[in-house]
Amino acid sequence: MTSEKVIGRLSLYRRLLKSQQALGQSHIYSHDLASLAGNTAAQVRRDLMGIGFSGSPARGYDIGSLIEAICRFLDPPVPQPIVLVGLGNLGRALLAYFPRRRPHLTIVGAFDVDPAKVGRVVMGCRCYAWEDMERIVSETGVEVAVLAVPASEAPAAAIRLVRAGVRGLLNFAPAPLPVPEHVHVENIDLTMSLEKVAFFARRGSAAVAG
Amino acid sequence: MTSEKVIGRLSLYRRLLKSQQALGQSHIYSHDLASLAGNTAAQVRRDLMGIGFSGSPARGYDIGSLIEAICRFLDPPVPQPIVLVGLGNLGRALLAYFPRRRPHLTIVGAFDVDPAKVGRVVMGCRCYAWEDMERIVSETGVEVAVLAVPASEAPAAAIRLVRAGVRGLLNFAPAPLPVPEHVHVENIDLTMSLEKVAFFARRGSAAVAG
Repeated sequence: MTSEKVIGRLSLYRRLLKSQQALGQSHIYSHDLASLAGNTAAQVRRDLMGIGFSGSPARGYDIGSLIEAICRFLDPPVPQPIVLVGLGNLGRALLAYFPRRRPHLTIVGAFDVDPAKVGRVVMGCRCYAWEDMERIVSETGVEVAVLAVPASEAPAAAIRLVRAGVRGLLNFAPAPLPVPEHVHVENIDLTMSLEKVAFFARRGSAAVAG
Repeated sequence: MTSEKVIGRLSLYRRLLKSQQALGQSHIYSHDLASLAGNTAAQVRRDLMGIGFSGSPARGYDIGSLIEAICRFLDPPVPQPIVLVGLGNLGRALLAYFPRRRPHLTIVGAFDVDPAKVGRVVMGCRCYAWEDMERIVSETGVEVAVLAVPASEAPAAAIRLVRAGVRGLLNFAPAPLPVPEHVHVENIDLTMSLEKVAFFARRGSAAVAG
């Protein structure tokens, strides 16, 4: 069983390795990768052994082969379709942000409650009617959804998506989702994160002043 | 000392309470708020006692007063200025997303390495020159920055911001930031989160098929 944290770290290693490769580097030592990733060399070696990859102690890991190994492990064998639920400011932003980063993860359609948005194509992605969500998701076999709707709509939308076959949700709504255990949920709460940063920045400076 | 987790939960409670208020509800029991927030009634009561608020056992908490109490605790007495570093797709998306949510947290300016963006006003926010970052941040007393630059640029940008007086960073770049301990950093890695969801959705369905 691969844990969530391992998947997160492999995803991070891959991006860091690509940056190093873009800078012209061909090999990297586990301790250098660890330092870029903010963890330890032992952790890096364990994670890479877990996907069957080992380095040469003299020259470090071959960056190209390591990127390929991580891709074989993390990426779907065929592009994995994703739907976006909610085409407001955040939804549109995510459409602009995601596709260029991970070609294997393709946002194939969006849904919005606003009838005025239905039928529109935003950044190459068509918006479908809210009431067609279950049908389209189950007909196309989509298993991953990005939820960018208000908190009040998120739980009901999640229930409908899961009923239609969704097994993974990236949830931007500040609401817990009532989904069964087999569904993997990642929550990202942008407002809460900004409020936390602002609170601690303020408190820190009050402590300095006081 | 208020922990990070408490701040996160108070921020969440406030948003949930506002939704309930918008639905016409005037009071709420700790166990109902807990169920919306995905935690326990005991936890809710502890968190609210921590900010000096207590409810009536018979009718539950008065939602209006509770929202006010959380605002007094979480919000700055005057609007707190924030800068946005990186005005790419993600940066523009954040500009569209944040200001309407938390009027107390105002993005007062943006910085981008691209000279073509300098001087432009995007969603009411002016973009300043990359090399003026330290000067403007320290002159205006900004203590919070949102980092929406590529991973390769993030560490250097963070160092410059901290040198100019920033004490809180919301970091969207998949790179650890080399900042001193007094600086509070929240990391949000959108790509890693999406990859995790996609991986576990796939694995789950392979397990069902297998």
